[in-house]
Amino acid sequence: MTGFMDRDFLLSTGTARELYHGTAETLPIIDYHCHIDPKEIAGDRRFDSITQVWLGGDHYKWRLMRAAGVPEEKITGGASDWEKFEAFAQTMPQLMGNPVYHWSHLELQRGFGITEPLTPESARRIYDQANERLQGLTARALMRRFDVRALCTTDDPADDLRWHEAIAADETMEIKVLPAFRPDQAVNIEKPGFASYIRRLGAGREPSSAEEAVGLLLERIDYFQAHGCLCADHGLDACMYAPPDPELADAAFRKAMAGQAPAPEEADAYKTLVTVACAKRYAELGWVMQIHFGCLRNVNRPAVALMGPDHGHDAVNSRSGVENLAPLLNAFQENGGLPRLIAYSLNPGDNTAIDSILACFQGDGGGLQHGSAWWFNDSRPGMRAHLTDLACNGVLGRFVGMLTDSRSFLSYTRHEYFRRILCELIGEWVESGQYPDDREALRRLVADVCFHNTNRFFRFGV
Amino acid sequence: MTGFMDRDFLLSTGTARELYHGTAETLPIIDYHCHIDPKEIAGDRRFDSITQVWLGGDHYKWRLMRAAGVPEEKITGGASDWEKFEAFAQTMPQLMGNPVYHWSHLELQRGFGITEPLTPESARRIYDQANERLQGLTARALMRRFDVRALCTTDDPADDLRWHEAIAADETMEIKVLPAFRPDQAVNIEKPGFASYIRRLGAGREPSSAEEAVGLLLERIDYFQAHGCLCADHGLDACMYAPPDPELADAAFRKAMAGQAPAPEEADAYKTLVTVACAKRYAELGWVMQIHFGCLRNVNRPAVALMGPDHGHDAVNSRSGVENLAPLLNAFQENGGLPRLIAYSLNPGDNTAIDSILACFQGDGGGLQHGSAWWFNDSRPGMRAHLTDLACNGVLGRFVGMLTDSRSFLSYTRHEYFRRILCELIGEWVESGQYPDDREALRRLVADVCFHNTNRFFRFGV
Amino acid sequence: MTGFMDRDFLLSTGTARELYHGTAETLPIIDYHCHIDPKEIAGDRRFDSITQVWLGGDHYKWRLMRAAGVPEEKITGGASDWEKFEAFAQTMPQLMGNPVYHWSHLELQRGFGITEPLTPESARRIYDQANERLQGLTARALMRRFDVRALCTTDDPADDLRWHEAIAADETMEIKVLPAFRPDQAVNIEKPGFASYIRRLGAGREPSSAEEAVGLLLERIDYFQAHGCLCADHGLDACMYAPPDPELADAAFRKAMAGQAPAPEEADAYKTLVTVACAKRYAELGWVMQIHFGCLRNVNRPAVALMGPDHGHDAVNSRSGVENLAPLLNAFQENGGLPRLIAYSLNPGDNTAIDSILACFQGDGGGLQHGSAWWFNDSRPGMRAHLTDLACNGVLGRFVGMLTDSRSFLSYTRHEYFRRILCELIGEWVESGQYPDDREALRRLVADVCFHNTNRFFRFGV
Repeated sequence: MTGFMDRDFLLSTGTARELYHGTAETLPIIDYHCHIDPKEIAGDRRFDSITQVWLGGDHYKWRLMRAAGVPEEKITGGASDWEKFEAFAQTMPQLMGNPVYHWSHLELQRGFGITEPLTPESARRIYDQANERLQGLTARALMRRFDVRALCTTDDPADDLRWHEAIAADETMEIKVLPAFRPDQAVNIEKPGFASYIRRLGAGREPSSAEEAVGLLLERIDYFQAHGCLCADHGLDACMYAPPDPELADAAFRKAMAGQAPAPEEADAYKTLVTVACAKRYAELGWVMQIHFGCLRNVNRPAVALMGPDHGHDAVNSRSGVENLAPLLNAFQENGGLPRLIAYSLNPGDNTAIDSILACFQGDGGGLQHGSAWWFNDSRPGMRAHLTDLACNGVLGRFVGMLTDSRSFLSYTRHEYFRRILCELIGEWVESGQYPDDREALRRLVADVCFHNTNRFFRFGV
Repeated sequence: MTGFMDRDFLLSTGTARELYHGTAETLPIIDYHCHIDPKEIAGDRRFDSITQVWLGGDHYKWRLMRAAGVPEEKITGGASDWEKFEAFAQTMPQLMGNPVYHWSHLELQRGFGITEPLTPESARRIYDQANERLQGLTARALMRRFDVRALCTTDDPADDLRWHEAIAADETMEIKVLPAFRPDQAVNIEKPGFASYIRRLGAGREPSSAEEAVGLLLERIDYFQAHGCLCADHGLDACMYAPPDPELADAAFRKAMAGQAPAPEEADAYKTLVTVACAKRYAELGWVMQIHFGCLRNVNRPAVALMGPDHGHDAVNSRSGVENLAPLLNAFQENGGLPRLIAYSLNPGDNTAIDSILACFQGDGGGLQHGSAWWFNDSRPGMRAHLTDLACNGVLGRFVGMLTDSRSFLSYTRHEYFRRILCELIGEWVESGQYPDDREALRRLVADVCFHNTNRFFRFGV
Repeated sequence: MTGFMDRDFLLSTGTARELYHGTAETLPIIDYHCHIDPKEIAGDRRFDSITQVWLGGDHYKWRLMRAAGVPEEKITGGASDWEKFEAFAQTMPQLMGNPVYHWSHLELQRGFGITEPLTPESARRIYDQANERLQGLTARALMRRFDVRALCTTDDPADDLRWHEAIAADETMEIKVLPAFRPDQAVNIEKPGFASYIRRLGAGREPSSAEEAVGLLLERIDYFQAHGCLCADHGLDACMYAPPDPELADAAFRKAMAGQAPAPEEADAYKTLVTVACAKRYAELGWVMQIHFGCLRNVNRPAVALMGPDHGHDAVNSRSGVENLAPLLNAFQENGGLPRLIAYSLNPGDNTAIDSILACFQGDGGGLQHGSAWWFNDSRPGMRAHLTDLACNGVLGRFVGMLTDSRSFLSYTRHEYFRRILCELIGEWVESGQYPDDREALRRLVADVCFHNTNRFFRFGV
């Protein structure tokens, strides 16, 4: 019997323990994909209570509280910080097997030095202790505690990047904080608000064709490039592909700008055209392109109308369009612009398909990656499945590893979670004779996957 | 080396053994979804041989016998009871890894006290012993042996529920036997026999619109409510959704009543309209609504023509329509009628999608559940995968647990199978430090999942 | 800690070790599905270097080298044999968790008696040693070393089978080498080259209807039958089905012969018609029909234009059409021609669907099989998943076991890999009390799955 989430949490073999404590644990963190607000880093935000830093904005926890029967009042409503904390503490013991159970305790352990399990009985004690220890902890202090060396936020092309400028100009800030270019609002033509977004992006110039819309994006890519950006990030409900057809793309664009809904094949033509053009520019600049797909967004419309997006009302899209990833990458290639790229699907059933599709396009230095288990799959079983599938159909030693995709300064513990799971899996393979017990080679592989591959792949230079 | 299916079957850790023997094993059974004929309970059916009670009606076993090369004569044909039993005994040793291998031995152990493995060599001995011990065993005696406290049968809206009335009136019957409302024949408009079924349901009144068909169903819901019904059960080959469009629904209805095939989008409009209306009424009555989908039914047409349905000729539908569950639940919500609900898909690849979709609609007290691994997934790997997926994306502590979905009085052993698998999984988590070793909390969670959650969720009051 | 890939590789229990070393290891091999060129067997090909026999033609290894960043020059290009070998050796340590890592070392161990792990450091030593040991090793010598008793190559209907005739006439050749009938070019009407292929098949006679095209195929089936052929093999990008409609099929055929693209529903009508007709003839002849589907072929068009097909540019097709397998088998059945059959999908998410569909059609002696984990799934996790799924929904004791699907004379080690994984799984089941520890029954089941079932099912008679 192993102690609850102790020093050797998830490390059942000697090899796993040695690799984790000897190598993985000591490496700094690069978080190449997150949703932290750069303003909070620029201003070095302070937090009034653990509820604010720990439950505020965390839709993973909110969903579980709802499923456990907690009224919305105590989740995102007007209840006090203590009432919300207590409601979460009442939910916790029911979350056996849920990654949030582990994340939450890792956050209490690493963020606040609290090792006691959170239960209704321990709730008040932990709340008071955590709030006491929160004094003096700021956004940057938390980042330093986790030894974060670099991160990329998620930024709209229309953003002026003022907070990134402020951070870059701040000589007291040694952590590299870079923008990432996320043009979803200019790509997803079927979504409400497209026309007004394009007008905002144009800032007075109204594009009259898909090609001109692309022109606006290319200008913003250059602007991001001038701000040190190293990567882009395309989020698609489903991966689409349409054969090149500028006229169909223009038809979609004109309809959408006139407030009409383009036909699905028109929309796909537009989205493919814009995505292919962006990819070519990323390739020229040496950026990494991320594509993630397989999400049903805002499915509970009454709840979204009440609370807005990103409040826990998204789901896995089983019609993820993963089969379109193949012709889409081919279109990048034929267009002379296949950038280094990371693909993810929210549908865990897509793993083998993604791995096998990427392997078809590795011809130019091996620049395609299957992104880490993500969002609903960011669990011990989900990460094990992803690592196993990737290892089976790709090259584990080249993997760029973990990201948080998070809004919280406490969630760097997910890198720890990933590293423990990685070392455990490697330990199983080595101790069962599936890989040689060559400690030097093992340490190198672990260090590459946990840190160096990301640093090299994105060219962070940290 | 553990003994074959002994006292600690599937319980490899001390924690698992303590939780199973100390808690799970001693709890009574609620079987909230089965296909037992209420007439057999009303009449307290006796059985002439183990073949009758054990192989008769069990299409799980039939399919395996066919795959093992047994001629139909010895499966559902005219062979003697002994010949059929012997043919199954010859099949058994080949069924390594199949849940039926475990179910069958659990049934022999618990139903007849026979612990010897069934092989061609032991067949005659076991046959004679079982038949001897079958004397005096009736339907109700079997239910009492397994400590069944409540169950729901599966009943057509047109059913007069006479057998349920008889059971309710029988003062010697202490087990709660309730009907469940299954309106598939009034929903699945694309299936043969729809028009004649609607006429039968109308009993003289011929509805002229989808809305009038709904009216007939609402009447029957009230009739079932007056007979103590607590839940409904919707079976769909694929989960469908269509935006509200009463005219399209009416077009479908008129065509179907005239013996014509509605277009697919018309059929979906009708099915969605009826399903949304039923859901609203269930919500008003406090019923639990079950939706299960992902089945290809009667795919071997020559065999079905010969034997009829439910003889082992159904399969998993990979086009399960799980992505439509999201807009369908949203339609329930927007229509002011999202009942407490259990969703299942026969496609095991849908697990994460279902869990993540349900989590989007938990706003009102947490009333949405992912139903237990079902039919082809009701195996040790299938149940482990379901429990793991549910735990990862939902709240395991609230899960309503197991059902048999069975026609047999011996299959309550599937609850035992489930409980062992659950305790084993929890044991693994606890002993590897993934959950605290808090025995009181563990016992409570196990008892909730095995019994109390179901009792509360359905309001059985037993 | 177990030694790296030693005698007990993947055999962690005593039961597994006894079953493997006592039974599985000693059985000969039947490789019922491979892509070896019969000319190389007829001529008893010699190899100049390990690079030629080991890396030449092995697109599994090429894909991984590309993903590891090796330039094409050192993969399929003009680099020397040593440079290519060295580049692969540099890739190897990064392939932790990849089946190619295990296959490669099994090939070095069994083919060359080399047990040292391949690394950049050991590369030169291993290269020289292997080349030395390669002297005198020919195609047939390798087949004898692995105790191959029978194999089926993959042959086009238009092939004259001259090399098969030569092998059959060679009295020094005791291994049974048979052709397999693979009519893909006559079925996949949507692919380029269809019309010219049909003309080549007609050898002067130009068929004017789908029925006449079928007539050509039936003639070639008879020709193959006269050459000892026992099986056919249909490869489909996606499993299709269309209701019988000869006019639609003819429309497709006429368009395709005129160089036009048939509409998708026309193409499906043609493909279904031809496939149903072939199946009927196979049933009459007692052949085994293989159907495999779920492949996206040649997705990287620039690379395929450069290198040709089968160079590592294929992927998993998530739109595998597995749901169409049910009506397609029903069409075989209704047409009076359901042959013994093996179905495979490249999409591992199809396993349960395939198993459950096949079980619906087992009525006539149990002649339907779910083919072994294949291509991208031919890994330890993939094979375990396949065996587990098959066991859960089928009859493991009847399984026809492994095939290589390979172009290489060294890849018979994949049978060893399969047998170790099978014995390990059985060992786990037995030692945890899930199956009786009846050694005689276990040995029989292992021998059946590894050799005898295949021999009987295909009627090899070896």
